[in-house]
Amino acid sequence: MPERSSLGALFSPNSVAIVGASSKPFSAGHQFTRFLIDDGFRGKVYLINPKASEILGRKAYPRLTEIPDSSVDYVICCIPADGVLSLLDDCSSKNVKLVHLFTARLKETRRAKEIRLQDEILEKARRLGIRILGPNCMGIYCPESGLSFSPNAPSEEGTVGVISQSGTFAGLFSTWGNIRNLRVSKAVSFGNAIDLDCPDFLEYFADDPETEIIALYMEGSKNGQRLKSVLAEASRKKPVIVLKGGVTEHGSRAASSHTGSLAGSPDIWSALFKQTGVIQVETFDDLANTVLAISRSAPPSGKGVSMITSTGGFSVIETDVCLKVGLEVPPFTEETLKELRRMVPAAGTAIRNPLDAWPLYYNIAEESETIDDAIKLVASDKNIHSLLLHFDEVSYFISVFGDALKDHLKGLVKLMLDGCEYARNQLGKPVVVCVEMDPYSEDEADRMYHLMVKHAFEERQFPVYPTLEASIKTMYNLYRFGKRFDNN
Amino acid sequence: MPERSSLGALFSPNSVAIVGASSKPFSAGHQFTRFLIDDGFRGKVYLINPKASEILGRKAYPRLTEIPDSSVDYVICCIPADGVLSLLDDCSSKNVKLVHLFTARLKETRRAKEIRLQDEILEKARRLGIRILGPNCMGIYCPESGLSFSPNAPSEEGTVGVISQSGTFAGLFSTWGNIRNLRVSKAVSFGNAIDLDCPDFLEYFADDPETEIIALYMEGSKNGQRLKSVLAEASRKKPVIVLKGGVTEHGSRAASSHTGSLAGSPDIWSALFKQTGVIQVETFDDLANTVLAISRSAPPSGKGVSMITSTGGFSVIETDVCLKVGLEVPPFTEETLKELRRMVPAAGTAIRNPLDAWPLYYNIAEESETIDDAIKLVASDKNIHSLLLHFDEVSYFISVFGDALKDHLKGLVKLMLDGCEYARNQLGKPVVVCVEMDPYSEDEADRMYHLMVKHAFEERQFPVYPTLEASIKTMYNLYRFGKRFDNN
Repeated sequence: MPERSSLGALFSPNSVAIVGASSKPFSAGHQFTRFLIDDGFRGKVYLINPKASEILGRKAYPRLTEIPDSSVDYVICCIPADGVLSLLDDCSSKNVKLVHLFTARLKETRRAKEIRLQDEILEKARRLGIRILGPNCMGIYCPESGLSFSPNAPSEEGTVGVISQSGTFAGLFSTWGNIRNLRVSKAVSFGNAIDLDCPDFLEYFADDPETEIIALYMEGSKNGQRLKSVLAEASRKKPVIVLKGGVTEHGSRAASSHTGSLAGSPDIWSALFKQTGVIQVETFDDLANTVLAISRSAPPSGKGVSMITSTGGFSVIETDVCLKVGLEVPPFTEETLKELRRMVPAAGTAIRNPLDAWPLYYNIAEESETIDDAIKLVASDKNIHSLLLHFDEVSYFISVFGDALKDHLKGLVKLMLDGCEYARNQLGKPVVVCVEMDPYSEDEADRMYHLMVKHAFEERQFPVYPTLEASIKTMYNLYRFGKRFDNN
Repeated sequence: MPERSSLGALFSPNSVAIVGASSKPFSAGHQFTRFLIDDGFRGKVYLINPKASEILGRKAYPRLTEIPDSSVDYVICCIPADGVLSLLDDCSSKNVKLVHLFTARLKETRRAKEIRLQDEILEKARRLGIRILGPNCMGIYCPESGLSFSPNAPSEEGTVGVISQSGTFAGLFSTWGNIRNLRVSKAVSFGNAIDLDCPDFLEYFADDPETEIIALYMEGSKNGQRLKSVLAEASRKKPVIVLKGGVTEHGSRAASSHTGSLAGSPDIWSALFKQTGVIQVETFDDLANTVLAISRSAPPSGKGVSMITSTGGFSVIETDVCLKVGLEVPPFTEETLKELRRMVPAAGTAIRNPLDAWPLYYNIAEESETIDDAIKLVASDKNIHSLLLHFDEVSYFISVFGDALKDHLKGLVKLMLDGCEYARNQLGKPVVVCVEMDPYSEDEADRMYHLMVKHAFEERQFPVYPTLEASIKTMYNLYRFGKRFDNN
């Protein structure tokens, strides 16, 4: 078992050598060189390639042993598998303690020769006191140090620790989060994990002061008992959200081929996560949406949600969706109903939960009751534990307000924010906002107005989602998070 | 029961009177006036309002009986419920046979007075030989005649007939479809359906030559036996896709308040749809996605799907999703595997189904094997009945190709289209394309490149979706569509 502190150099090494650095645009060695240079890695970078003296305008060394420094903290290895054993000798002579093997085609090929080679690599690394990250992984992204494995990785430091067996998810999370002002503290893509494994990173992130919440994607584990105790410890310290790949028989086969992991039955995994207070989700979107919600919002104290919309047509289907995921859409008390009938008198409006409050989206005049009043009233209802505010149908707004829409929306958003902040801050009832957007829409005015509303809620730290389904599912996950230690 | 032919005037009346037409921006009477004028209704429009002589620059009449014509085909009624009975007398004297009641607050209020009034309206209309659409509904959208109930409704005529108890869904469908070149033939929002009801429209659409596929949103029905026989007849003639609102106990309560419908148990409804060959779906997105797929693509002959992606990280989770919805991700035959290993030799690539073919997304040089070859090979595998092609991660492409990306993508898309058209046209294996996009992304270059790929596939009539989950779910619905009459 590694000392926890030793992993610090993995995320913030003082010096990195890229073995297999290259000028060839398609090669990984080229990509890693560019990521470190473009994203401004703050330590020293040594480029190693026996066939080049210069790469991207920087000096290249023919071999790791040729560099002037007597030691290097971290080596990124992009050369084929058959060169790794001798590289480890070079690493040893340069006091390298951590090697990231981007190199793949080892055990996951399921061929005897590669399986033997992988065993030899591990054995030699252990003998030389070198820790291995990978093989078959993208490695580290750490905005603080400038390490990165994807183009345009945000340089802003955040609070989400991402531990992912797959490089895709780790990279995607930082892009997804960047669009939502949700930033990563440290991310690790750990691939086949022949040495450093998921539990090592969980231990490290659990104690990492920069990390406030842990997002985990895993396909399997080599040591179930250790994983369980580490998950339990981590989730006592901070929220842990997990997406487990390979929960079906076929998915499990895919996982085995993808990272060579062993996978257990879905039920065993679900039980493990439940027992350790870890929130398990089903897709990448669920993972990201749930991390966003937990980062921004306290959990609701109960299942009762109220939806406030400008379109009654959704209320039936969305009630169905709430019930299916496990939430409740309780009726308002008589007191609330009476007040609401006074506030929202217009035709076609069903005064019930979900609340079709369309007239209040159009009329924001100060002398009348406005949407903030309705939000506060509904949030104060004793049957209601959380709110889901729906914003959509900008095309109707445009047709009614024309050029005056910008000002109308500013006024409307101010009122909605007032109501939602009251619900969250005064009543302690969480609010999730759905600003509905079609990804394929090319109506730029429509996009601009929707994004304006999205930004306004995001700035005040409300979780915002583009579909009602995602909003509902995430609210339920937020509820589950609040109850994660019940009945354990 | 109405004569089927009599409904023609509902969609293409020669003259329309808007009773309650108004200059007040928030009012329905104003909106309907604008929709008919802006969207270019091709018949005569009479505006009726006792307090105005001119509305939006057009002459207004104080009362329906005051208009010069001796008859009007269709009346849109936006006045409060208590004025409807005397309006019916006026309608009778002007030979009106069809009245659309936007007017609401009748039976759905569940108050004795309004329930009685609704009964009186129906009784009087029957006596006078007037058919009622609604109350509490948005009415008709028909690009051919120019009738419309939403802003910017497309004027292009299409092939999808939309029958929706909710105006929201009917309007949303036309907007959603417009973004995807999927256009509506006729749409009706039928609300509380005190007279003309879902089965009437189903009968009409089943025989309507402009309508090739029927999208149905319903919350309940007054005559289960008639609905069943009409559904069965309609679905023998053309595809019928249904979203049933109120499938949970609470949702059913919401439906009752929304449109005053009676709803049965979810199981009864599911059985009804299954027996009649109607494809039931769960959300609006499912409904729209499935209609798009069936409009563009033949169903697969079996459950075996192959996914081709540029990111192996998704393969595990997406295999899980496929299995959960009911598809299969079968292994390739040894023959296919052997060929693929030759084609996609790069490190990190798992040669299996799902196929991580990332090198083929980057290398499109003619002298080598390219992605069209891989698509054709995989599609030819006897275990594979359908293909799901994934396009994503433009940011990586940009980092590799820079300004040359536009040309690269043009070349890549051409190859992908070649492969997909071969699969669909030569092998009869349907292809669904996922061009993954984040609705909140403000990276305009990223958006532009994704949209370029989306447009290219759309032009060749492939169904395109923004998420893998939607693509997978829709492929399964396409499979179910192919099997809809099995075991009936």
